[in-house]
Amino acid sequence: MSEFAKTDRTTITRLPKRGVYDNETVYSILDEALVCTVAFVRDNQPFQIPTGFCRIGNKIYIHGSVGSFYMRELAEKKLPVCISVTLLDGLVLARSAFHHSVNYRSVVLFSQAEKVTNDDEVYEALEVFTNKMQPGRWNDVRKPNSGEWKATMVLSFAIDEASAKVRVGPPKDDEEDYALDVWAGVIPLKIERSTPIPDPALKSGVTLPHYLS
Amino acid sequence: MSEFAKTDRTTITRLPKRGVYDNETVYSILDEALVCTVAFVRDNQPFQIPTGFCRIGNKIYIHGSVGSFYMRELAEKKLPVCISVTLLDGLVLARSAFHHSVNYRSVVLFSQAEKVTNDDEVYEALEVFTNKMQPGRWNDVRKPNSGEWKATMVLSFAIDEASAKVRVGPPKDDEEDYALDVWAGVIPLKIERSTPIPDPALKSGVTLPHYLS
Repeated sequence: MSEFAKTDRTTITRLPKRGVYDNETVYSILDEALVCTVAFVRDNQPFQIPTGFCRIGNKIYIHGSVGSFYMRELAEKKLPVCISVTLLDGLVLARSAFHHSVNYRSVVLFSQAEKVTNDDEVYEALEVFTNKMQPGRWNDVRKPNSGEWKATMVLSFAIDEASAKVRVGPPKDDEEDYALDVWAGVIPLKIERSTPIPDPALKSGVTLPHYLS
Repeated sequence: MSEFAKTDRTTITRLPKRGVYDNETVYSILDEALVCTVAFVRDNQPFQIPTGFCRIGNKIYIHGSVGSFYMRELAEKKLPVCISVTLLDGLVLARSAFHHSVNYRSVVLFSQAEKVTNDDEVYEALEVFTNKMQPGRWNDVRKPNSGEWKATMVLSFAIDEASAKVRVGPPKDDEEDYALDVWAGVIPLKIERSTPIPDPALKSGVTLPHYLS
């Protein structure tokens, strides 16, 4: 199993036993999360942009308009970025207020944008991104035309300096609190996809595709 | 209805019609989100920490150990911070790959940490935070003892410079694409709380409290 080398920036110092450094865990969290936040520095001020993303190999890809000021800035100035994702898996209800917690899986990574100029790589990033949102979707939709292609910018970020932080399991209470008459346990949280809502302008006769039913 | 003044940092420039500046919208998004990410700058490098939080009035509160390096850094150095939260409400499946989108509500705000030293304010922040995770919980649990009280640090961030970005509704396709035989619509997303899992060490005879059933 491969691991990311720990650096000063990625070593988990608070509750270090929750730190996870193997590629497989980091990748699986990135693949499950639909949104990341990209942080960067402008004039010594921190900025953050929440955005969709996907992972291919050891790179994260985001896309946007060629007019996106921040994306151009990241690519042209080679700004250092910090990217994070967080999956909330449960509320951990302990007997004491102090030991309340959450079960979660998060990744924080440090990288630098690279503008993707290879057409095949851009195409693959858009395909993987679309199928991550909804498996099976890419084959079903109209592909980018030349105008859309020119209007789209894709950035990649190498995943070289990364770590995950993970909490699982029941609450941990102080020894004497286990005798209290307080319910304790975990409320699992999950992102649920509910029944698809057809576009009011849906062409008559078009039925729900198999990958959505 | 009160609004946040637009600043260079909070004015939505990409898809400006999605920008929302009224306090009520910003507050409601903050109140629904369980996790925020706090970004700050250290040695000209961006850092991000995902963390739980709550809002009281026009302040965000986070808490942690008095040993937390980054929390002490934020408070002592008065570092500028950027805080964001994102709620994903749906996947927007358009007829073209290009017009795929997500329905979301996000907030980005700029602030500075203030260490909370007033005991009543610390207490209220912990109570509101616990009840945000699980309404009704605070009254039920053992309150912080003096050791825990000393081990806990609470920071507040004034919400003065903030904006929201919101997308709702069905996909918007190019006129000619409405004739395509491609299903289009929205897959609603929602964080579901499922059946509580009792702590294996739960004291026998302790039943699920009314606020969890």
